[in-house]
Amino acid sequence: MGILDDRYTGPEDIKKLTLEELRDLSHEIRTFLVESVSKTGGHLAPNLGVVELTISLFNVFDLEKDKIIYDVGHQSYVHKILTGRKGEFHSLRQFGGLSGFPKREESKYDVFDTGHSSTSVSAALGIARARDLMQEDFQVVAVIGDGALTGGMALEALNDVGDKKTDLIVVLNDNQMSISPNVGGISTYLSQLRAFPNYERAKKEVQVIVEKMPLGKSINRSMDKVKEGIKSMLLPDMLFENMGLTYLGPVDGHNIREVSKLLKIAKEIKGPKLVHVLTKKGKGYHSSEQRPDKFHGTPPFNKENGKAKDSASLNYSKMFGNTLVEMARNNKRIVAVVAAMPDGTGLGGFRDLYPNRLFDVGIAEQHAVTLSAGLAVGGMKPYVALYSTFLQRAYDQVIHDVCLQKLPVTLCIDRAGLVGDDGETHQGILDLSFLTPVPNLTIMAPKSMEELRQILYFSETFNGPLAIRYPRGGDEKGIDLPPLKNFEPGKFEVLKEGRDGFIYATGKMVARAMILSEKLEEQGVFYGVVNGVFIKPVDHELIRSHLDKGYKIITMEDNMVHGGFGSMILESAMGHFMAGNVLTFGFRDQFVEQGSVEKLYEVHGLGYEELSNRILAFTGEKNE
Amino acid sequence: MGILDDRYTGPEDIKKLTLEELRDLSHEIRTFLVESVSKTGGHLAPNLGVVELTISLFNVFDLEKDKIIYDVGHQSYVHKILTGRKGEFHSLRQFGGLSGFPKREESKYDVFDTGHSSTSVSAALGIARARDLMQEDFQVVAVIGDGALTGGMALEALNDVGDKKTDLIVVLNDNQMSISPNVGGISTYLSQLRAFPNYERAKKEVQVIVEKMPLGKSINRSMDKVKEGIKSMLLPDMLFENMGLTYLGPVDGHNIREVSKLLKIAKEIKGPKLVHVLTKKGKGYHSSEQRPDKFHGTPPFNKENGKAKDSASLNYSKMFGNTLVEMARNNKRIVAVVAAMPDGTGLGGFRDLYPNRLFDVGIAEQHAVTLSAGLAVGGMKPYVALYSTFLQRAYDQVIHDVCLQKLPVTLCIDRAGLVGDDGETHQGILDLSFLTPVPNLTIMAPKSMEELRQILYFSETFNGPLAIRYPRGGDEKGIDLPPLKNFEPGKFEVLKEGRDGFIYATGKMVARAMILSEKLEEQGVFYGVVNGVFIKPVDHELIRSHLDKGYKIITMEDNMVHGGFGSMILESAMGHFMAGNVLTFGFRDQFVEQGSVEKLYEVHGLGYEELSNRILAFTGEKNE
Repeated sequence: MGILDDRYTGPEDIKKLTLEELRDLSHEIRTFLVESVSKTGGHLAPNLGVVELTISLFNVFDLEKDKIIYDVGHQSYVHKILTGRKGEFHSLRQFGGLSGFPKREESKYDVFDTGHSSTSVSAALGIARARDLMQEDFQVVAVIGDGALTGGMALEALNDVGDKKTDLIVVLNDNQMSISPNVGGISTYLSQLRAFPNYERAKKEVQVIVEKMPLGKSINRSMDKVKEGIKSMLLPDMLFENMGLTYLGPVDGHNIREVSKLLKIAKEIKGPKLVHVLTKKGKGYHSSEQRPDKFHGTPPFNKENGKAKDSASLNYSKMFGNTLVEMARNNKRIVAVVAAMPDGTGLGGFRDLYPNRLFDVGIAEQHAVTLSAGLAVGGMKPYVALYSTFLQRAYDQVIHDVCLQKLPVTLCIDRAGLVGDDGETHQGILDLSFLTPVPNLTIMAPKSMEELRQILYFSETFNGPLAIRYPRGGDEKGIDLPPLKNFEPGKFEVLKEGRDGFIYATGKMVARAMILSEKLEEQGVFYGVVNGVFIKPVDHELIRSHLDKGYKIITMEDNMVHGGFGSMILESAMGHFMAGNVLTFGFRDQFVEQGSVEKLYEVHGLGYEELSNRILAFTGEKNE
Repeated sequence: MGILDDRYTGPEDIKKLTLEELRDLSHEIRTFLVESVSKTGGHLAPNLGVVELTISLFNVFDLEKDKIIYDVGHQSYVHKILTGRKGEFHSLRQFGGLSGFPKREESKYDVFDTGHSSTSVSAALGIARARDLMQEDFQVVAVIGDGALTGGMALEALNDVGDKKTDLIVVLNDNQMSISPNVGGISTYLSQLRAFPNYERAKKEVQVIVEKMPLGKSINRSMDKVKEGIKSMLLPDMLFENMGLTYLGPVDGHNIREVSKLLKIAKEIKGPKLVHVLTKKGKGYHSSEQRPDKFHGTPPFNKENGKAKDSASLNYSKMFGNTLVEMARNNKRIVAVVAAMPDGTGLGGFRDLYPNRLFDVGIAEQHAVTLSAGLAVGGMKPYVALYSTFLQRAYDQVIHDVCLQKLPVTLCIDRAGLVGDDGETHQGILDLSFLTPVPNLTIMAPKSMEELRQILYFSETFNGPLAIRYPRGGDEKGIDLPPLKNFEPGKFEVLKEGRDGFIYATGKMVARAMILSEKLEEQGVFYGVVNGVFIKPVDHELIRSHLDKGYKIITMEDNMVHGGFGSMILESAMGHFMAGNVLTFGFRDQFVEQGSVEKLYEVHGLGYEELSNRILAFTGEKNE
């Protein structure tokens, strides 16, 4: 029923459709997106915003040779539908199913894997420069949102774009949002551009003025310069032209005819071009138009009323935000820094109560961390909240600006461990490996939401660089562990005594270690459980005392097994010449794909059965 | 003799000097800088460029309360001289001596530690926002070069600066250089600004024009808007004003009176300001004016003729550059990417021979790596050359854009291990820890320059993400090891057989392991030596076979002991339940300060004597 199901077989069919039919197609795609994502969950609003833009791209470019790269990638659903993957949308973001992001392994039409923001111009420029060196002939298009434009590397790329005058089209998908509304000078600048809808007409009128203009005698400028100046006046400014890009637009991104027309013009112009397209995030579905932030990424929802099917139960992010609000009430030095995600990190309430003490810097993790360092130098107590994988963007800043200077910045690392359906690019399984080698950094993880609250209170008087990592979601079901309330760096909590050994676990893995310990008991092996609340420094004394008593030590973490918590324990044991009695568990040397968290634990060696078997084998092992 | 020695006791004395005396002072400082740095080596040209600028800053601001932050920090020598540290310049960059960068621990006048580029605006903004929240009253100034402005995080910070209208002065020290001449759109833009020397006069003239201007009927713009437009015309553009900063300048940065005047104006204006100061890098010393790149950082030199006292012998960087030139001759797919350091990385020759195949992206490491990924997608074979610590800036891009997509990008990691005199911020001792946990990445290190050449030839046909790390300088003196010529991932080279065990070493440490092995022999203990040419994957088979035969394994690396090469070996042994027979050596959990490399090895546990003693103790140890 409809064009999509009856007549559409592949990208080239777009060009056979009339404008009227393209409009029908966009309507069909929207209906399908709402229907499908309401069942599976996913990134709805970004995709509803780019339906006509994507159709226009397919209309103008030849997908068999031209390359389109979608920044961040969560707005590639329409592209996926139009490249033969509609039938797989029921499996979206599920284990073994369709990815929510472009994946080179999934389709030849996916040119570059994206997941984090602001990479598309760099990647597109690389492909375009390779094309020129190989003397090939095709178009390269980067589609980037205005939010992603605040990310430093997008600006690094734009600065480089003009250098070799490479043919390249940058489509600026301007919806005035990242996940939350955009911030900063670039955003202000874009709103000036938006206010000036008719570039072509203005240019002509300017011509008339220029002819008649009296020029001050000492202003020795050529006519061309004057024209440039007038152009600047009328198009409030020429940021992009200054960077060497030809600016085209703005154009209504929901008008297929107009967007196609401008893209065709862009194809004809030599060198780098920027096509400014205005879109509405969440377009065409009432609930997402009203709350594009809520429908940026959504769990399954009732499509009649837009209500999420998940209950809005407490989770780590909310616990973090709520606690910080409590603390801030009595401590004026507490400030929060966030990179375009005040709500995602649980800081929406903080922002509403203390707008002057919440710094949303846009998608700009590097700046977020160093700004926090500056705030600490200025006497504040900054909490910078970032998702684990986004912290990878600010690694150098953590090292130099926080840790080297021993500044009391608290890194609040949300989405540490598996996040599930976002897949490889969002699984927070590297942070312990890249943070533990950094000197002067103390690293903690709570075993429960309540313990996160206690750790945050502890952090208030902790005078140095501190990282707190906590997972997506809430506490492990069916297990209730009282929170630690007193923390001493390098001091673990023994939760349960053992006979054969101890499982040292950290964060979310502590509750799982308790369950594992029970499963082991059923097989006649008795392991105690230790809460490794400090990943750094570890509890050398406890480790030594356990090893001296002949206990085995097993470690469990939801991070790469190499270089993280387990490595810290193993190396501590080595210092005592007893590394042979330690066995570490975590993720192996593989990226972790999308899927349910429990399923992924099983697949990646952290399922209860596999762990039990390996621990049993180790327990029987004689060490030399 | 002179003002500096006879009459200058501290920052406040500047204000007591006449303009004439300030000029004399700048002359004295220049003479001292050339004299002093010719003996110790150091960053000469950047400091010669900012003599008058620094004097003007001291002249206008109150150093007892106002905060000045120097971006990158290697242009802080004049600041150090003027804040009581002239007497320590003989110890510049030496162990225990004066740092070549601002250091909070060194002086209360050093507000923020800098070493890597582009952090100053973020840090300054943090301090300024803290000030406003605490209702304190002082000025905050960030001094940033035009080169540093291409770094993404500087742009992230500028984007945020206007957001809260924070009072802040950004001094743009525009010398048209980073280390090499600047590249990209921002640089082009700045040269437009430089071409327009008289902002104030232009503004007045514009007024006249504006009054007389006929306006097209349909152009419905207020007079203010028109004025803005004319301003844009005359000052070719208003990039910074668009970002919410008041633009002041440009001004001749060697004219103390003019710079001081503009800085005073800046102090009076509310909100964020940008003061555009034009300077000449290397100013006032003939040799450095001619070759500011060569005198950016220099070894000791003859001040009469500017000739370096170090001989220009072969080093790893040159070997890299020379080999890549050879390879590129026969392989058109080879391209090189570099971030503002074509010469520092040894790629000067490549640039001259293949200008179209060398992409210098400016100080923009994130973009450099993802551009390389794009080039690889486009079918090229990219080599991206970065110093080890600068790679920290592109960590996320290595993970997502190279490794996740298994693209054949070769990361050429120069300055891995200790660099010596640049100190904490430049010691490349974290790269193995942050790279080994990343899936799909193969990591290699040559034991000699000749082996680097062989590895590069191997890399040509290696089809996947590859990192090659190599140190500053050249081969270990007095030891000659023939290079490996055939490489198989996961296959180590046994260089010398042992009786009690083997030392597994990597890169530069291999030669040192040979020496260590001889020293151990003198004490009756016989250790063989293994060249861990692959840090990842390690040679599990060899490890297992050595352990099975009862050998101990010692590891040596010039990286953090946690999470690097040794951890890889230790974990491999653990998989064989024999971790108890492994002992790892590398840097401990501390930043490594400046000093001679040999001295630092000693201080940080990698000196021959300490290693010998610890290995002897381990050899005697019975494992359980």
